[in-house]
Amino acid sequence: MNRPTIALVAALVTALPVAAQESPPPAVSHFTLENGLELVVIPDRRAPVVTHMVWYRTGAADDPAGQSGVAHFLEHLMFKGTAKYPAGTLESAVNELGGQLNAFTTPDITVYFETVPPDALSDMMAIEADRMRNLVLPEEVIDAERSVVLDERRQRVESQPGSILAEQVSATLFQNHPYRIPVIGWAHEIETLGRDDALSFYGQHYAPNNALVIVAGDVDAEAVKQMAEQSYGKVERGPDLPPRQRLQEPPAQTSRTVTLHDARVSLPSFTRHWVVPSYRQAEAGEGEALDVLSAILSDGPQSRLYQALVVKAGIAAQARASYDGSAFDYGRFVLYGAPRPGTTLEALEDAINAEIDGIIANGISEAELDRVKTHLIRSTIFAQDDQVNLAQTYGIWLTTDRSIADVAAWPDRIRAVTADDVKAVAAKYLRPATAVTGYLLPLAEEKTQ
Amino acid sequence: MNRPTIALVAALVTALPVAAQESPPPAVSHFTLENGLELVVIPDRRAPVVTHMVWYRTGAADDPAGQSGVAHFLEHLMFKGTAKYPAGTLESAVNELGGQLNAFTTPDITVYFETVPPDALSDMMAIEADRMRNLVLPEEVIDAERSVVLDERRQRVESQPGSILAEQVSATLFQNHPYRIPVIGWAHEIETLGRDDALSFYGQHYAPNNALVIVAGDVDAEAVKQMAEQSYGKVERGPDLPPRQRLQEPPAQTSRTVTLHDARVSLPSFTRHWVVPSYRQAEAGEGEALDVLSAILSDGPQSRLYQALVVKAGIAAQARASYDGSAFDYGRFVLYGAPRPGTTLEALEDAINAEIDGIIANGISEAELDRVKTHLIRSTIFAQDDQVNLAQTYGIWLTTDRSIADVAAWPDRIRAVTADDVKAVAAKYLRPATAVTGYLLPLAEEKTQ
Repeated sequence: MNRPTIALVAALVTALPVAAQESPPPAVSHFTLENGLELVVIPDRRAPVVTHMVWYRTGAADDPAGQSGVAHFLEHLMFKGTAKYPAGTLESAVNELGGQLNAFTTPDITVYFETVPPDALSDMMAIEADRMRNLVLPEEVIDAERSVVLDERRQRVESQPGSILAEQVSATLFQNHPYRIPVIGWAHEIETLGRDDALSFYGQHYAPNNALVIVAGDVDAEAVKQMAEQSYGKVERGPDLPPRQRLQEPPAQTSRTVTLHDARVSLPSFTRHWVVPSYRQAEAGEGEALDVLSAILSDGPQSRLYQALVVKAGIAAQARASYDGSAFDYGRFVLYGAPRPGTTLEALEDAINAEIDGIIANGISEAELDRVKTHLIRSTIFAQDDQVNLAQTYGIWLTTDRSIADVAAWPDRIRAVTADDVKAVAAKYLRPATAVTGYLLPLAEEKTQ
Repeated sequence: MNRPTIALVAALVTALPVAAQESPPPAVSHFTLENGLELVVIPDRRAPVVTHMVWYRTGAADDPAGQSGVAHFLEHLMFKGTAKYPAGTLESAVNELGGQLNAFTTPDITVYFETVPPDALSDMMAIEADRMRNLVLPEEVIDAERSVVLDERRQRVESQPGSILAEQVSATLFQNHPYRIPVIGWAHEIETLGRDDALSFYGQHYAPNNALVIVAGDVDAEAVKQMAEQSYGKVERGPDLPPRQRLQEPPAQTSRTVTLHDARVSLPSFTRHWVVPSYRQAEAGEGEALDVLSAILSDGPQSRLYQALVVKAGIAAQARASYDGSAFDYGRFVLYGAPRPGTTLEALEDAINAEIDGIIANGISEAELDRVKTHLIRSTIFAQDDQVNLAQTYGIWLTTDRSIADVAAWPDRIRAVTADDVKAVAAKYLRPATAVTGYLLPLAEEKTQ
């Protein structure tokens, strides 16, 4: 079983924002069963395959204090046993249906998903409905799976300098909110996680009234609803959940740096991070403006960072920007740069800063804005050729208090972004005084302080 | 009422370590009442005055998540009302006894203390015993006192760039442990604190079996014990408390900086911080070696930083080091430097780093070691001329799992520190790769990145 938690989280970030096909909009159906389970059906008849996803509205940012990693640990344990599917049998049951399954955990959500032939959807739903409330977790699987997770942490974090740095950047960037804590957990806390911790988290967060099922594929909405009622509909509603109120950030008042020198690093690089609003938090239009700003800087060979630093100045091996507005709480805006050998990180940083300063001072042109918006909308539509991406879009939007209508309206909202909006969000959020910059440097590299 | 929380915390740090008078050792008495209250009596007959301190083994690091500041808020509210001493009457009652009272909160402890004439001690104990369990807290005092605390925060933190920086340095230095959170609390969380939060914290942590009473002065231990039995002895034991197990730090793997440019700063300065063991956590002898290291660097006009940077190179207006090993969990080692006008912060940093590197590479001389140890022990004994300092020493040691015998043995333990011990702790803990450096800079000052 390959559960690429971290890789998939990264994919989520780069895949976003992904919005509806523009013309014609898909006839997306949205039901809520009596036990509170939400169900979204997205027709996609290009191939005889169905993507089935169960989204629990809980993730690592809901880990209790001192139990970092429990949401992710539980994701692993969800493959380890109900009465019907004892440890080790779940994956083969799905394979026998002709399907494949996987799962991932982010700070905000935990998702189990499968691709199956249409005629296996009903059985697949029965399997997911079963493990929604009937997890058994024999004690003997706990120690082994904890070792698997610790090994995953060693491989994906501790043996990768970039991941170590990313963890310590997050722990610096967020001063109070749990986005500061790694999704996989701190090693010393993972080591203490036990069966009771996992079952307690499961009991609190896994229930039909805290879940969203998304089905995308060659299916009929009414038929899917009837199947869902036969499987998910039989699962007893859980207790009402309190509002998802995480710790809030104090005002950022300092610029910070985080530096890792490591023998495994061959080329230096830096990342600059700001806490910015997510779409859910943002004032109207700010999420869209941040998406456009990111595209102006970084989307394609015409983008400002590429043109200025790779093509013209020739000092960057890589230079890019990204905005992740998909979180339940705070968003993040990130710049990344790696100098071309022979140039310095300082020169590249200065040049990237100059690009940001240029937008803040002079704004952007209408022609540039139009080109970027068109490209952003088009690439979003292309991305939806991937059925999992398509389903994921609706999952993200619906678990961050947005609607199916919002998905459909996103292209028009991007079109409404003005050059002044872009300039305004750059000036408001990309302030040097509150940036957190991570430096990943070879051992020999001495950064001038 | 002046409750100098932050100022006193700073005083605690600089006053430590404070150990026993060497010859003759004071005949310190140590009792535990049947309800679990610990009582220490320290004879000090130089003046007809008694210091009376009640130490609760709880502080800001025990604030529940999202309720930062509640330990300190409760400290304020402890002056706001029992049935016997309704709001506003407690201070005048103590004044009528000829006494003065105050209180402070640290991450680990909350202390209420008074100086009174010896014949008022019994009444003073009755007052403290009363508010140990009988706090009433009329709803009408809550909003007003919350405003007082928010105003205190504005005055002591938000209007002082050095305090803002110190807060953000701590939030960066500690990645998981609650020492990352300000004692006074984040403003947005203080705003949400209510009567129930304060009373819940009080009910959990304020009880004879979680308190230590220290009496220093012109008193007889047996008489004090009898008085205590008449007052504290009547207070009902509280529920047993769980072990004080706070979140632990992950390994520090990066060097970090935190920079504040502020128009109110006229002279630049920097502080460099490391998480190091406290005395309670340290392997045998390491706390003492860190104290000696700090003294080698910074204790008096012969110290290395003063001689090298102020006297010889003339580049420092100030340069000093400190070790605070008094915490319940992690200790902290701090370097501080402010360049003389006309020199740069970078030059001073480099020079201070060179002093540290010199100790790591070459160690220290026996003559220097002897001089520093003698001075450290002597200054500690001088500090005990202050009766509050004397009482505070025992309070700190006894609330960090050390004993009265440890206080008495401290000078001998300092004498046992070798030059190699000092070199070893410098090499082990003062690594550039894990330092967190705060820069406090004028607006105009552009630090070369």
